[in-house]
Parts: sequence; C-alpha cells; structure tokens
Amino acid sequence: MACGDDGKLSLDSIRDSLIRQEDTIIFNLIERIKFPINPSLYKQQLPSSSNISGSLFQYLFQETESLQSKVGRYLSPEENPFFPDNLSDSIIPLTKCTPVLHPAAASVNVNEKILDIYINQMLPLFCTEADDDANFATTAACDIQLLQALSRRIHYGKFVAEVKFRDSTDEYKPFILAQDKDALMKLLTFEAVEEMVKKRVAKKAKVFGQEVTLNDSIEEVKGKIDPLLVSRLYDEWVMPLTKFVEVEYLLRRLD
Amino acid sequence: MACGDDGKLSLDSIRDSLIRQEDTIIFNLIERIKFPINPSLYKQQLPSSSNISGSLFQYLFQETESLQSKVGRYLSPEENPFFPDNLSDSIIPLTKCTPVLHPAAASVNVNEKILDIYINQMLPLFCTEADDDANFATTAACDIQLLQALSRRIHYGKFVAEVKFRDSTDEYKPFILAQDKDALMKLLTFEAVEEMVKKRVAKKAKVFGQEVTLNDSIEEVKGKIDPLLVSRLYDEWVMPLTKFVEVEYLLRRLD
Repeated sequence: MACGDDGKLSLDSIRDSLIRQEDTIIFNLIERIKFPINPSLYKQQLPSSSNISGSLFQYLFQETESLQSKVGRYLSPEENPFFPDNLSDSIIPLTKCTPVLHPAAASVNVNEKILDIYINQMLPLFCTEADDDANFATTAACDIQLLQALSRRIHYGKFVAEVKFRDSTDEYKPFILAQDKDALMKLLTFEAVEEMVKKRVAKKAKVFGQEVTLNDSIEEVKGKIDPLLVSRLYDEWVMPLTKFVEVEYLLRRLD
Repeated sequence: MACGDDGKLSLDSIRDSLIRQEDTIIFNLIERIKFPINPSLYKQQLPSSSNISGSLFQYLFQETESLQSKVGRYLSPEENPFFPDNLSDSIIPLTKCTPVLHPAAASVNVNEKILDIYINQMLPLFCTEADDDANFATTAACDIQLLQALSRRIHYGKFVAEVKFRDSTDEYKPFILAQDKDALMKLLTFEAVEEMVKKRVAKKAKVFGQEVTLNDSIEEVKGKIDPLLVSRLYDEWVMPLTKFVEVEYLLRRLD
C-alpha cells in the first residue's frame, strides 16, 4: 500500500496484497533453506572485545534495521521493527503518510514472538541440520528478508481489522467495549477462507519450488520445498498470529 | 560451494550451482520489479550535514557490505565486494578456506560494470517509470540481494575457468602465454549451451512469475515478469560478463 492510498483501502486491495505477499514469503523461504540451520549464527555470542551483546544474528539484524530506519523504513505503517529501541532518525526528508490506521496501531507488535518461533520452530522444521557452512552473512541476509516478509504479512492484520471495523462498526463495537477477545476472534475467523489459503500456499510452494528444465515433463520429485510444510507454516503461525494482531488492534480501536 | 569442497570441484557441480543460481536471480528480480524504478534512490545525494558522499543507494549498499564483511562474507571466494575499499575486519574467528582458485582471482572484479548496467540499463528495462513510491529501504534491500546474486553468478566464471583450465591445460596454456583474449574467448564459448540457458531462464521466469490460483488452469496472461526480458538479461549481460571474467581469470592463471 503506497502512501496516501487511504481512499483505496478495501478488503479487495488488502486481499490482493496478502496473496502477493505469499509469493514473497515462499521465494524467501526457498532461498533460506538452501543453507543448513547454521546454529552458530543464533547461538554464538560475540567476543567481549567487540563490545556487542547478543548473538551474531541479533547484531546483524539490529544493524540492518538501524540502517534501513535511516531511509525511513519504519515511517511506513506496513513496517514494524524487531528492535524498536535501536532505530535511527531518517537522514533524508520524507513526506509522512496520511494515517490510515488508528494511532494505537503502533503499539501492536508481535515481532518478538515471530522471531522466537522462527529460530526455535521454523528453522528446525525447514532446514537441514548439517554442520555450519560458515555462510553466515548470506544466511542472515535471507533470514532478515524472510522475517521482514513474515512480519509484514502478519501485521497486515491491522489493515484487515481496520477495514472490517469500518465495514461493520456496529457489529464490532459492543465486543470492543466489552474487551471480549474471544468474540472478536470468532467474528473475524472464516475457516473456509483459511482452508483455501492453506491449499493455495501449498500449491505455490510446489510451483515455485520445482526444478524447471527444458524437458516438457515437470519433474515432480525434486521439489526444493515441502508444500505441506508451507501449508503448516500458515496454519500454525502465520494465520493465528495475523488474527492475534487483528484482535489486539481492535481492542484498542476505540481508545 | 562450501569451504573445502575442492575435491568436488567439477564442471558438473559448477553447472548445478549455476542452474540453481538462476532461480535465485529470477526470484529476486520478480521481487524487485514489484516496485517502480524509484530514481531518487540512485540520484539523490545525501544532505551535506550527513557527512556521507554518494547517492542514497550507494550509502545503503556500502554500509550493508561493510556489515556483512564483519561476519566474513568476503572471505569466501564466491563473494566479490562492490565497494572493496569500505570493508571491515571480521569480528568472529573464521576458518579460512583451502584456496581453490589461483590467487590472481582476487584481482578480477567486474562489479563496477555490473552496478552501472544494473542502474542504467536493467532497471529501466524491467521496472515501471511511475513516481517514487518512497519505499526506499525495501527497494534497496531487493536491489542489494539481486546485485549480489548477479555478481555471484558472473564471478562464478572464475570457477568455470579454473575447471576448464585443469581439464584441458594443454589447450589453454599457449593462448594464456600469448595473452590472446580472442582465442581464449572462442575456446570457452559454446553457442548451443548459451541458447539452452536463454531458453531455460525464460521458462523459469514464466513458471515462477505466474499467478498461482486454486483454479486448475494456469493463467498465462498475468505473469509478473516478461520471460523474454530475462532471456535478454542473460544474453546481453550475464553470459558475456561471465565469459569476460573467465578470460580475465585465465589471462592471469599462469602468473
């Protein structure tokens, strides 16, 4: 969503963006799993002489976010930092977007949870456990692209919730006033849609993960990624976290 | 190629890697062209108060390379920096690879040319000319991933040349001694192979660029990227630059 697109904010445009973001996530996932887990990246503390605390990966990610904040990445309501205490001011003048979301949106950030799931559950599920291959910089670059894509997708829940709220304010209002999380969750859950998403991402994983050769037959065997795992990624983490973001946003929508 | 894979250095393993790298390049290309050219990124000089010279993009790219060099990115013979004067020492201890290439490999670096072609020819060819969308950080992140993938692919010519030299030393030696670029270029040019590569990358662009839906029919119309342009990218820039790298490497192979 570009700056000033408020007029076009609709469930259709949001859905189109979410569908396109699936491709980005799957491309990045395929690129990441070329490498083994490379556990040292996430476990290795830096030498004390470096004056840097945290793991190697945390250091690289923080510094990348800090650099990107200098050109205004986190001025966009679509972007949510993983390390909000480590950002810099923009070094270039940027026009601020007309706000689309309620100001409370800024306080909804589940990146800590995303990062924890990513390192401790997703990587072991998707990557081989071979020895470190020492490709730390390229592995981390893939991680960061993928985590940012997952974060963008999941926090898009704020836009989803905003549009749903605008379209059916009367329906949402009483539950928001009552701070009834369960009722809100129920209101925005559509199992048939979720089933469709799971099927679609599995199909995308199959298509994008195939070994394309000049033979006419598509070699079904040698896929780069297991479509069922991608389906599971959406089922267990992406969609539940998106809905969590939606509920958290709605709870604050009348503040 | 992981560290210490010298024993497995063969034309087959190199070819497999080059084929896999096509996917990476095409994924990254599809991701980049979601955004318009965003010319300000490459043209805008930073405010003099920032004490940084060069364009916004150059600044972001330099800083990214500097950060990645701290975890040893450029210790790998597969990686060639775009800004070699701006690197840092590694902050972690890393085992050095057993050298596979002749030491002169380090002096073959065509990244300046790649960057120039990328900004001045590739982006205008692939991206729309819409107004800046201000997504500078995400656009630049895609650029950097893509440029690094192109650079890796093109500089892989060093490994190709090394294997060809080892396999047919007697054939290459006289032309190297004579410093005969044209004869070397002729020796390592296989038009039939190049035609196949062009066809394959076009097919990959079609497969990876398709809009995948749950309908059984593949929607041919709405591809995200023009397969012919990808074919042209390989024909006009990727393959000629790879061969240029091969020749430059061979010219120094007996130093």
